[in-house]
Amino acid sequence: MKKVAIVMGSDSDWKVVRAATEQLREWDIPFEAHILSAHRTPEKAAGFARDARGNGFGVIIAAAGMAAHLAGVLAGNTTLPVIGIPMKGGVMDGMDALLATVQMPSGVPVATVALNGAKNAAILAAQILSLSDDGLADKLTAAKEEMERQIAEKDAKLQAELAE
Amino acid sequence: MKKVAIVMGSDSDWKVVRAATEQLREWDIPFEAHILSAHRTPEKAAGFARDARGNGFGVIIAAAGMAAHLAGVLAGNTTLPVIGIPMKGGVMDGMDALLATVQMPSGVPVATVALNGAKNAAILAAQILSLSDDGLADKLTAAKEEMERQIAEKDAKLQAELAE
Amino acid sequence: MKKVAIVMGSDSDWKVVRAATEQLREWDIPFEAHILSAHRTPEKAAGFARDARGNGFGVIIAAAGMAAHLAGVLAGNTTLPVIGIPMKGGVMDGMDALLATVQMPSGVPVATVALNGAKNAAILAAQILSLSDDGLADKLTAAKEEMERQIAEKDAKLQAELAE
Amino acid sequence: MKKVAIVMGSDSDWKVVRAATEQLREWDIPFEAHILSAHRTPEKAAGFARDARGNGFGVIIAAAGMAAHLAGVLAGNTTLPVIGIPMKGGVMDGMDALLATVQMPSGVPVATVALNGAKNAAILAAQILSLSDDGLADKLTAAKEEMERQIAEKDAKLQAELAE
Amino acid sequence: MKKVAIVMGSDSDWKVVRAATEQLREWDIPFEAHILSAHRTPEKAAGFARDARGNGFGVIIAAAGMAAHLAGVLAGNTTLPVIGIPMKGGVMDGMDALLATVQMPSGVPVATVALNGAKNAAILAAQILSLSDDGLADKLTAAKEEMERQIAEKDAKLQAELAE
Amino acid sequence: MKKVAIVMGSDSDWKVVRAATEQLREWDIPFEAHILSAHRTPEKAAGFARDARGNGFGVIIAAAGMAAHLAGVLAGNTTLPVIGIPMKGGVMDGMDALLATVQMPSGVPVATVALNGAKNAAILAAQILSLSDDGLADKLTAAKEEMERQIAEKDAKLQAELAE
Amino acid sequence: MKKVAIVMGSDSDWKVVRAATEQLREWDIPFEAHILSAHRTPEKAAGFARDARGNGFGVIIAAAGMAAHLAGVLAGNTTLPVIGIPMKGGVMDGMDALLATVQMPSGVPVATVALNGAKNAAILAAQILSLSDDGLADKLTAAKEEMERQIAEKDAKLQAELAE
Amino acid sequence: MKKVAIVMGSDSDWKVVRAATEQLREWDIPFEAHILSAHRTPEKAAGFARDARGNGFGVIIAAAGMAAHLAGVLAGNTTLPVIGIPMKGGVMDGMDALLATVQMPSGVPVATVALNGAKNAAILAAQILSLSDDGLADKLTAAKEEMERQIAEKDAKLQAELAE
Repeated sequence: MKKVAIVMGSDSDWKVVRAATEQLREWDIPFEAHILSAHRTPEKAAGFARDARGNGFGVIIAAAGMAAHLAGVLAGNTTLPVIGIPMKGGVMDGMDALLATVQMPSGVPVATVALNGAKNAAILAAQILSLSDDGLADKLTAAKEEMERQIAEKDAKLQAELAE
Repeated sequence: MKKVAIVMGSDSDWKVVRAATEQLREWDIPFEAHILSAHRTPEKAAGFARDARGNGFGVIIAAAGMAAHLAGVLAGNTTLPVIGIPMKGGVMDGMDALLATVQMPSGVPVATVALNGAKNAAILAAQILSLSDDGLADKLTAAKEEMERQIAEKDAKLQAELAE
Repeated sequence: MKKVAIVMGSDSDWKVVRAATEQLREWDIPFEAHILSAHRTPEKAAGFARDARGNGFGVIIAAAGMAAHLAGVLAGNTTLPVIGIPMKGGVMDGMDALLATVQMPSGVPVATVALNGAKNAAILAAQILSLSDDGLADKLTAAKEEMERQIAEKDAKLQAELAE
Repeated sequence: MKKVAIVMGSDSDWKVVRAATEQLREWDIPFEAHILSAHRTPEKAAGFARDARGNGFGVIIAAAGMAAHLAGVLAGNTTLPVIGIPMKGGVMDGMDALLATVQMPSGVPVATVALNGAKNAAILAAQILSLSDDGLADKLTAAKEEMERQIAEKDAKLQAELAE
Repeated sequence: MKKVAIVMGSDSDWKVVRAATEQLREWDIPFEAHILSAHRTPEKAAGFARDARGNGFGVIIAAAGMAAHLAGVLAGNTTLPVIGIPMKGGVMDGMDALLATVQMPSGVPVATVALNGAKNAAILAAQILSLSDDGLADKLTAAKEEMERQIAEKDAKLQAELAE
Repeated sequence: MKKVAIVMGSDSDWKVVRAATEQLREWDIPFEAHILSAHRTPEKAAGFARDARGNGFGVIIAAAGMAAHLAGVLAGNTTLPVIGIPMKGGVMDGMDALLATVQMPSGVPVATVALNGAKNAAILAAQILSLSDDGLADKLTAAKEEMERQIAEKDAKLQAELAE
Repeated sequence: MKKVAIVMGSDSDWKVVRAATEQLREWDIPFEAHILSAHRTPEKAAGFARDARGNGFGVIIAAAGMAAHLAGVLAGNTTLPVIGIPMKGGVMDGMDALLATVQMPSGVPVATVALNGAKNAAILAAQILSLSDDGLADKLTAAKEEMERQIAEKDAKLQAELAE
Repeated sequence: MKKVAIVMGSDSDWKVVRAATEQLREWDIPFEAHILSAHRTPEKAAGFARDARGNGFGVIIAAAGMAAHLAGVLAGNTTLPVIGIPMKGGVMDGMDALLATVQMPSGVPVATVALNGAKNAAILAAQILSLSDDGLADKLTAAKEEMERQIAEKDAKLQAELAE
């Protein structure tokens, strides 16, 4: 299976981004995680993106906050799908990171998920990889059913509480 | 190759969304386009998403404005990657559609592109499909080079204008 | 009397939504409360709304946060009045949930109350049911007078504090 | 059947609000429309709300822009359900009117619909009145089916266009 | 001297509004403070404003949060200058209260100060009353000089710290 | 009677600000209007404010857009009440001017009116001056009654239209 | 004198950015203008910045809209001062470009001017270069005086109009 | 070398602004820091700016919050480059200070950095001074390399953690 690359702009993002790695591990999806900055290590970041397809990656996940240029800069250097996780913080709960990630110009898309949406970034990566991996597609279906089961369980608990 | 589904909530979105179909056609990516509404045809929309993988689709693109629930509702009914195009209009230039598309809860991601970003949605779909289609990957690389060439051409034109 | 349905997207909403049930209980308005998700249990949520009128409900209250699609999805599946409670959290104090709840397209309204406005959702439901229940109308009038009395009491307390 | 009251803060709102009267007329719902201002005719506005239930009204729809106090002021003077239509204009596409309408304090709800959502206000009023009027409930169901039919028709037209 | 009326929509505002009374006391400006709500005690609030000029008031200060209608409702019932203090809280740090206070329609102004700006409301009231009270004008000038002195003192302290 | 000073940051503001002068003229309130900039003529602006009370002014109205510092800078140089008119334009319909005008630090209030609220600024100035001028107070009362009469007239016209 | 580099992300920015070149020409400041994109020509953009100091540039001005990464990407590749011009358009009048330009992480500043502030970017560049060029400093002083003269002239014209 | 002036509107800003002085000290750049207010000590602030160039300053850094007029007022009184640091707090995480600092009118630029961006203000000042100081330019290059080294170190640490 192609690997997922997880890139974050700062090690302070790790406590949020870790949720992506946990989800990928749960589904046995191979990944690498790196700290690379669009502004502090621009050449490395560009080089990583340029070589990503050749190095066996299928998706790049990029997490950054404030003037979050990382996902966009990576997307400018690859034809792989790039998923952007705007990080909370900055101004207006991370509205700066959200807009800087999602409002990409024509020609260079970034697949943006919710603020701090690390787990969803991993699920989206898995959905992409599932197109050529039926086993992974089955895991996604199972996860969807499990979510449904959990909601039903929580509803049952609520009914019990209300009946007291 | 797997097909791309393009779903829009209203026929008034077509003048923007058409750019996605043009891009897909240019790269010979098979697609279907439909008008389906999360609120006005909820069962059809859910059914479309549930059957999409089985019907040969690989990616769903959903465009909607205002309280843009379409992409999220489709994503709730499929394990395919769903790309959301928030439509301008509504309030604050489409901030309502952007937030309603991107701020999905954990477990159900929507890959959100820029407001009215129909062409980028198509490119993102192509990037996803290119993971198992080297010919498409080559087309994406060529398009990237063409973009670069166009910028260079525009810069040359500017130099000429400045030199006058 | 027709029942009120209270639906929330996540059990984490319960600590806010409970205020609605307390208000309904105080006025002896029959209700059910459920956890149902537009994205995680889409079929159940749609089915609940489709059957609500037949099952003796008169009003549906739906609470959800972030890309809050729940109220809209329910409204798409019923002709009962649907009251939406956007939940705080998400981005900009819940602006995402507010816009995703209130900015519904033509044809499918959601009666939106303030962020976290669970008590007001219950009062609005009572106002709706009071149209065919004079006893409930009297309770609403009494509650209004009690509010007025409480403000007067607080003002008196302030006068005492100022006179010290 | 109980009447619907439509109150607007300025005659300039009429070109938007008229859509509500047209919807009510289509369903033979009796209504009155008035221009009354929370700031310019405060006593009349308060008096209108205080007497509304006694005068045979079942729902009040209030439309206002900018610091849109009208719906809230009416709601402070009645126990009928009050539906607020925030008007576009003002600042940030009507964000001022939206917040001033929806963010009501505990005890005094306003059922807020989308910016300029006059038609939806009328539909919501009809949904409320339909709880004790089966004929009106049937009309609402028919309207929902008609909406679905229209979307299907538009989709068919799109398929024809794509097949050309 | 004419009195200043301070009106707040809820006793929870008192901890902020108290700063206004302290400033007025420091300058021996007579005042009354009351809890009155545009939505919960609408008649009393309107009556208070209608009688304010006759009752010897020269300025009304009104503090309210969320859909802050209080200042506007008072202004609709008097020709005295009304100063509005939007309270923090609600949504986006009190943006709802700010817009609901300041965006008044033509004909009915509210003199809006900063969010939670209770002290500034008192100073503005004093500036207004100073037009016909030279003693108060002198106090305002003295306060301005004292502010300047305090900044100079703080700067001196900073210089000392930097020189260490 | 004390004069009103109207100061604007740019001659492009005149088309909006003129409404203030027209209102003042209608009520025979003496005024001067000037173009003065906080950034382009800082010394003149400061000097104007410092001398305003001595020069017979009772209120200063200041209109400015974008980073609207004019009202605040004038308020820093006088103890007269300063009314700020934030001008539309700039960003988010003038949100920059609104925040730059209203969010003054403790000690230096600006009485802010609505975006482009030139007429309301004049009315507020008149309300302030009316505290020591009963004739002006009577004019304000008459204007309030006239507003009420106009709304009643418009309502009558609407009734006629609805009855057709 | 060191040269000013003006870089824009798209030729559509030229109609705004041209104002910067006109201001530089007026003061005989040498400059080059280029179209370079952070996303479409990432290597060229990075290379331009890396070589800028060596190539005789003293300041870089970068204009970009939407997810405006250009100024930040250039700043990541040079130690020269980089001035960012966020372009209007995108969402909320260019709030996306403003936040994406100004909210740079620690270590890599961008000197951001107002939305579409091309002329101010040129003036700021001139102020920077004036530190080692007394002739340019004199031109800046003269321009400031000329601005003051123009305001005085406009005020005189207003006085004439008011006196009519 | 020319000195850097650091001016802040309130001593409460010092805990953030101190980071600027620490960075300047690290690079042996001479500076002065002062507390001066656009509103409370307007004459001193204006005078400081007018004399700054003559007093050996090359750059002015100004930090202020809320209706942050300080940087703009200084810029109105000097032809030196003025760097503005908008302070968090106020409304919407400091959006008021950001807009009041950056949205300067044509003719009077302020070089705005990120909210609370004190360290970046110092780096920008150093970049400006480096144009005529090769030693300082070398320090900036070294700092850039050190940043790169730190990111590499953090990435190595992450690899170790992932390999566990």
